[in-house]
Order: sequence, then C-alpha cells, then structure tokens
Amino acid sequence: MTERKNITIMGAGLVGSLLSLYLAKRGHKVDIYERRPDMRKILLDGGRSINLALSDRGFKALRGIGIEEAVRKVAIPMHGRMMHDEQGNLTFQPYGKEGQSIYSVSRAGLNAALMDLSEPNPDITYHFNRQLLDLDLRQSKATLRNHETGELEELHTEMLFGADGAFSMVRNAMQKTERYNYSQSYLEYGYKELTIPPAEDGGWALEKNALHIWPRGNYMMIALPNIDGSFTCTLFFPYEGELSFESIKTDDDLLNFFLQTFPDAIPLMPDLAEDYFSNPIGSLVTVKCFPWSFEDKALLIGDACHAVVPFYGQGMNAGFEDITVLDQMLDTFDGDWESLFKKFERRRKPDADAIADLAVMNFIEMRDKVADPRFLLRKKIEGRINQQYPDKWIPLYSMVTFTDLPYSYALETGREQDKIMKKVMKHIKAVEDYDKPEVQKLLEKQLVKKEKLKGYQAEKV
Amino acid sequence: MTERKNITIMGAGLVGSLLSLYLAKRGHKVDIYERRPDMRKILLDGGRSINLALSDRGFKALRGIGIEEAVRKVAIPMHGRMMHDEQGNLTFQPYGKEGQSIYSVSRAGLNAALMDLSEPNPDITYHFNRQLLDLDLRQSKATLRNHETGELEELHTEMLFGADGAFSMVRNAMQKTERYNYSQSYLEYGYKELTIPPAEDGGWALEKNALHIWPRGNYMMIALPNIDGSFTCTLFFPYEGELSFESIKTDDDLLNFFLQTFPDAIPLMPDLAEDYFSNPIGSLVTVKCFPWSFEDKALLIGDACHAVVPFYGQGMNAGFEDITVLDQMLDTFDGDWESLFKKFERRRKPDADAIADLAVMNFIEMRDKVADPRFLLRKKIEGRINQQYPDKWIPLYSMVTFTDLPYSYALETGREQDKIMKKVMKHIKAVEDYDKPEVQKLLEKQLVKKEKLKGYQAEKV
Repeated sequence: MTERKNITIMGAGLVGSLLSLYLAKRGHKVDIYERRPDMRKILLDGGRSINLALSDRGFKALRGIGIEEAVRKVAIPMHGRMMHDEQGNLTFQPYGKEGQSIYSVSRAGLNAALMDLSEPNPDITYHFNRQLLDLDLRQSKATLRNHETGELEELHTEMLFGADGAFSMVRNAMQKTERYNYSQSYLEYGYKELTIPPAEDGGWALEKNALHIWPRGNYMMIALPNIDGSFTCTLFFPYEGELSFESIKTDDDLLNFFLQTFPDAIPLMPDLAEDYFSNPIGSLVTVKCFPWSFEDKALLIGDACHAVVPFYGQGMNAGFEDITVLDQMLDTFDGDWESLFKKFERRRKPDADAIADLAVMNFIEMRDKVADPRFLLRKKIEGRINQQYPDKWIPLYSMVTFTDLPYSYALETGREQDKIMKKVMKHIKAVEDYDKPEVQKLLEKQLVKKEKLKGYQAEKV
Repeated sequence: MTERKNITIMGAGLVGSLLSLYLAKRGHKVDIYERRPDMRKILLDGGRSINLALSDRGFKALRGIGIEEAVRKVAIPMHGRMMHDEQGNLTFQPYGKEGQSIYSVSRAGLNAALMDLSEPNPDITYHFNRQLLDLDLRQSKATLRNHETGELEELHTEMLFGADGAFSMVRNAMQKTERYNYSQSYLEYGYKELTIPPAEDGGWALEKNALHIWPRGNYMMIALPNIDGSFTCTLFFPYEGELSFESIKTDDDLLNFFLQTFPDAIPLMPDLAEDYFSNPIGSLVTVKCFPWSFEDKALLIGDACHAVVPFYGQGMNAGFEDITVLDQMLDTFDGDWESLFKKFERRRKPDADAIADLAVMNFIEMRDKVADPRFLLRKKIEGRINQQYPDKWIPLYSMVTFTDLPYSYALETGREQDKIMKKVMKHIKAVEDYDKPEVQKLLEKQLVKKEKLKGYQAEKV
C-alpha cells in the first residue's frame, strides 16, 4: 500500500460513485462533490436517459466491489433485438450465443445503489449541491458554489478525479492548458424519451426480454424494459428537415407521424403527446480530448474524457472499465502518480477513440441495416462461424459487449472480419449455404490469413 | 447593389485587411478592430512567421483589388525545393512546370501594403489597440479593451466578420452556442525561426530562387528567401524526446546537434545560438469548426474558422480564397445575408477540411520523403504524365498550388492518382522507363478508369 491520499472526486454519477469505492478500498480518503442534490431524496431529470444497457465490462467493474449479483437481480436481461416494421410485424435477432444478454438497468437505481454502498464507508464523504465554478489546476484550488447556502467555497485538491461527465468543468480547466487537443462533435439528430406504461395486468406490454427497435432508415425509435413493467422509449430523430423535431409542431402532426411510422406503438402510449411536448430534446455529442491528466494533480475519467453517443450501449460500460483498468494498474503501483496517470491515459485513449467511432457507426446499423433481411442473414452466418471456430472468430458486437478485449482491438478485428464476410456473403442465399464446400473452403483460407494478422495484432495489444 | 451595411471586421491581419477592400468595393462601410498597435509604426512579433509562400489562389484574390503585380515585384519566386543532405549535397526538385513558382513574401510587408491601400478609402476605418474581450452574438454587442486609454468600450455590430485568426474570440463566442462542432489538435512538434543573414556582398548565401529543405526523417529545417538578401529558417522539431526542443539545453547541445545534422548551415548562421535561445517555440495547431456563421449577424473567415499547419504553404492562400469565393457569391446576391452565410460555409467547409488534412500529410513528405530518390523519381514520372496528358493529369501539389480547383477535389483526385502511381512505379527504375510500352499501356488503361471517376466527381464539384 502506497501513501494514503486525500482524493477529491468531482461528480457523484455512476463513475464517480463507483470510483470512490475502489479508491477507498485502496486505503485513500475520498470526498465527492456533486452539483445536484442527493438524487436519492429528490426526483431529478425526468425525460433523460432513464435506463441504460449494462454489459460484461460494466459487470466486471461491479464484481470488483461485490455487487454484480445484486445489480443483476434488479436488471432485465435483453437477449436480442426485436425489430418492429411499419406493419407491426416482429423480427428477432439474438445479440450473441445462448445465455449472452445485455441488461436494462435504471440509471437512478444503480447510481443510488452505489451511493448507498459507499456512503456508510468512513473514508468516503458526499457533498451535494456543490457546483464547481472554477479550477486552478496548477495551484490545486477549486472554487465551488454551495447551492444550499449560496456561498462560494474554496477547496484545496491534493488529488482530483474529474468524473463530472460530458460537460466536465475539470476538463474545461485542462482545455486552457498549452497545446490541448480537444474535439466536440454533435450528430444532427436529437433524442426524446417517451413512455410505454405497464399493461393492465401490471406486466410488460411488449416482449420483456428484448431491446425493441423501430428502424426507419435515417431515424428510429427504441424501447428498453423497466422493472415496474413499463418501457422507456427513445426517439432518435433529425433536428431539422422534412421529418424532424422541427417539423412536428402540433398534436395532429405527431399523431399522423406515429400512425404512419410506428402504428403498433400508438395504442401502447396513452401519454404520447404529453410526453412528447413536455420532454426536452437531448443532444448527441462525442467528446475526445488528450491528455486526460495534469501532472500528478488531476485525472479525467469516464464521460469527462470520452463522451460517446449511446448507440452501442457502452458509455457507462466504458467508464466503468476505466476504473477496472486503473485498479489493475494500482496492483503494481510504485507510488509515482504522475507516471501512473500518463500510463493510464496512453493505455485507454485508443480504446476510448475506438468505442466513440463504433458508437457512431452503430447508429446506422440500428436505424437502417437491421431492417434488411440480408443483414440479418449475415448475422446468422457470423453466428455459425463463431460456433465452428469459437477461438478464431467472435463477431464484432460480441467482442464489444460480451468480452473485455480492448475496444481498439475489437474495431480493428471487426474491420478484418467485415472484409471476409463480404467475400463469404457472395456465396450465401440462405443459412444452409453455409455448409457448401466452396463456402467452407473460402472461409478456411480467409481464417488462415486472418490468424496471421491477428497474431501480429495480439503482440500490439 | 444591395443595402449598404455597417460592417465590423475583427482583426486587421492579412485576411481582415484584404476583406475590407472587397467589402468597401461593394459599397459597404467597414470598421476594422485590431488588438495590436499599427504594425506599420511598431515592429512586432520577432521570431514568428516572418515570410510566407504566396501562390495562385492568393494572387487571384490580390488581382481582384488590382495589386497582384505590385506584390509580385517584391516577392521572390521559388521554382522548387532544394534539398540539403547531411553532407551538404544539394538536390533540386521543381514544383511544377517551367514558369510555375511559389513566391516568398514578407508577412509584415504584405499586411502593411494592404493597410496602406485600404486606409485612404473613406469607407474603411482602422481602430488599433482594441482587444475583443466579450461578444454577445444574439445582442450584437462587443466589449473591447482600448489599450490606449485602458477603458472598456461597447460596440454594436450590425454585421460582424471574424478575421481574428487561429485563436479567434469571435469563434470563441460561437463555441458557446448550442451543438457547436469544434476541434483543435496540436502536432507534437513546435517550430523555431532562425536567420541566415545576407552574404558579405549583400546577396543571398544560398540559391535565391528555391525553398530550401533539410529533411531529416522525423524533423526538418526549411529556409525561405527575403528581399534583403537574408533567409528565414524554420526548424520543425519535436517538443519532447531524445532529440527535441527539450533535449537541447545549452549552446554546446545546440552546436553539436547542428554539426551532426545541418553542417552546411552552420557557417551561414552567425547568430544561431542567440536566435535559438531567444526566439519562442511556436505551436502547430489545426482548428476545425462548424458552423462558421451566426444568423445574419456574424461570419468567420480565414484562420478563425480553418487554421492549418504551414506545410502546404496554403494558410494565407486559403484565407484569401475565402474572400474570392464570398465575392463571387456577392455577384448574384439577393440581399439575404443569413442564407448567403449558410451557402458560403457549406461551400467552403469541405475545402477547408481538405487543405487542413493535406497540410498535415505534407509535413511527412517534406521532412522525410523528399530525401528518398524513389520519391523524386516518382515526381519526375508524374511530370512526364502531366506533359503527355495535360488535361487528364495534374499532380496533387500542382492542383493545390497552381490552380483554383477546390481543395477537396484536389485531395480526392490526388488519392486516385496515388493509387495509379503505385502501379506505374512498379515498372519504373529510371525516367527512361516511362516510354516502355508496358508502362504506356498500363497508364492508358488507368487513365480511362480515372476519367470515368473524374467525370462523376466533376458533377459533384
């Protein structure tokens, strides 16, 4: 155990709260400052990101503090995607192999659970209603507004973790340092959350164990189940244009649009118009930056250094994996925090960039490709390849979701596999064609090539 | 002629000064605000970007206000690159065809000339020593510090052009609007300016009509001639690492490094150590952003919306071309400024992105590839192709430098030509091999393919 540090965490969200537990376990004293009130006492943020998909990387981080099973119990497994076409016909596509699922969890519920777990720890103290206004990184001096008293408070931060999300004020201070690399890019789409309440019998009005998608080419709606029997739907929709948030102005516009586009959802959404016109439009931003640290004084983590769009369901999982990776590095830590931070940011940056790019790419898959029978056939063929060559071929989605292979490796390998699949699919009209000798021969040849490449890449990982 | 506007330009640099002339010609009243004192009265910015390469796009914009020839007279044509190896051996590579050159001009001299031309115009007023501190875009309200009086001044900006460079305060205000796309990325290299004074006879100590390059793999030095007989050298060098700005601490370090690396330059640089240790290290940033305008109230132009690294010599040329394009659009202007701004930014953004990427790529060419005989042979072969097929093949460098084809078209066409050159060069060991039947046949076939593609692209341009 190295020297006990007084650590400040900005942000008591999912990543900040989980991080506090890991750091306290290592013997450090942690103070968490959070802009908002204690979410366990006051209901916040109606209409914004009510549930999230938790997958293997996230569970791994929860395992480290012993709450994996407890969380799994209040999460709803989603075994695959359920596509709804314009006539209300359903098609199901499993995410992975038998037993592989992603889990719908309540963001607020999980956050509260992490707070409940950490708050009794004598080494962890929460300070709510404290908004970071200004940060002098060199002097380690933070100025906060105490929203309970209205007063300004000054804070010396011996060591600071910025877990304060996509619009991080800690990152904002880093951006003012010399030669800082930074980008923020917005999709021309926003999102709006809508609700499907529980059915009359209290159960779920749609198949419970699936992520529902209404793919409509350049936009889409999705729905994830909640444990109370409801679904939270999210409409991803252009800000402007012929069919867009801008073009839908009245209840009639809305109803006509839904009747044409999502007819099977209308009877399930009694409060559609009210939800639609009272909920805010969320924006979809990707943030990339570098470096993530300032000397041995501050480190960004989670969305603060790599906010991604939600289409791979990996935002929270990637933030949790930051903690797993940092904790692994602490196993062999020599006491030099600055070099630890540098090692961490160098290790994680390529993976953060990869999941950011994957997430943008997956929007196209979800809103468009999943409606294409050829695409679904290809997914089945990939499943067969994985079955036949479990060590040599894991589909991209599975690498990202059901393994902890580095995201950057998954992206690279996925590209190689994509090239091979294009060749293979030329010979495939139906699943049965997979067994044809020419397909088997082609695949074998391609896999040998791929293995050579993979061996080379593995050295880099 | 549309309604006469009161136009504010922030920044009296090259782009701001030239823009004022174009706008006044259209009948508008222009006020230019500049943070620094009048550069014609006070010598500024020693050691930073003393000369620049002016090429066709820049001259075209100067032609529009009738000073092309006057500028050409005080500029030094550089017909090609002169490479210096570690033994001081020289190799020359022409930039284009006979008569095609880029021109070394004094940044301060050109800026002063533009000011001298515009200041007597009763519709153009310069306000020096005015620093933009804050800008409220919605209210069109600018707050400036008057550095002569120390007072704050408020300004209503009926229409504002932000020509205030890579660290633009006008852009800074736009960045605070909703869903603003922005990126700044720095190379891990800095630059330092050094001087080769005139020879004893008052002439140039190196070949005058060339851009000199000392390519050294991952870093390089270049030199451009000035009209007083001197050269301004720029060392592009890593910030950190074994050989870097960080590693060179003493006069001895510096001398040893130059003796090993640039031995032929040492006798020409009597003030090397003084220059090196007193001049600042400049940083190399690429800025991309979108949109460039705010309603009908403000428009960014030049470096303010597309700062690029200097390796293609196109920063000023691209900014001047913004003005040419805007002026062309004003020819058919219907009086709707907001839609003009939107049309302008949509038209220019792909070209600004392209030249930014080309400039980063050209750093590798200059510091590394130009030292490779195979690369120089390839350039010669490309020259032959251009000679044989003048309408079908213009080398990438020439498209960028000696034409006004859109940068984005040049980048795309350059990529196609690069693929073809890879195939062609497999058959080439010397320039004479160009005439071999198999080379001629291959080229003909590839050009047919390329023409088809080009026809398709031309429709998009």
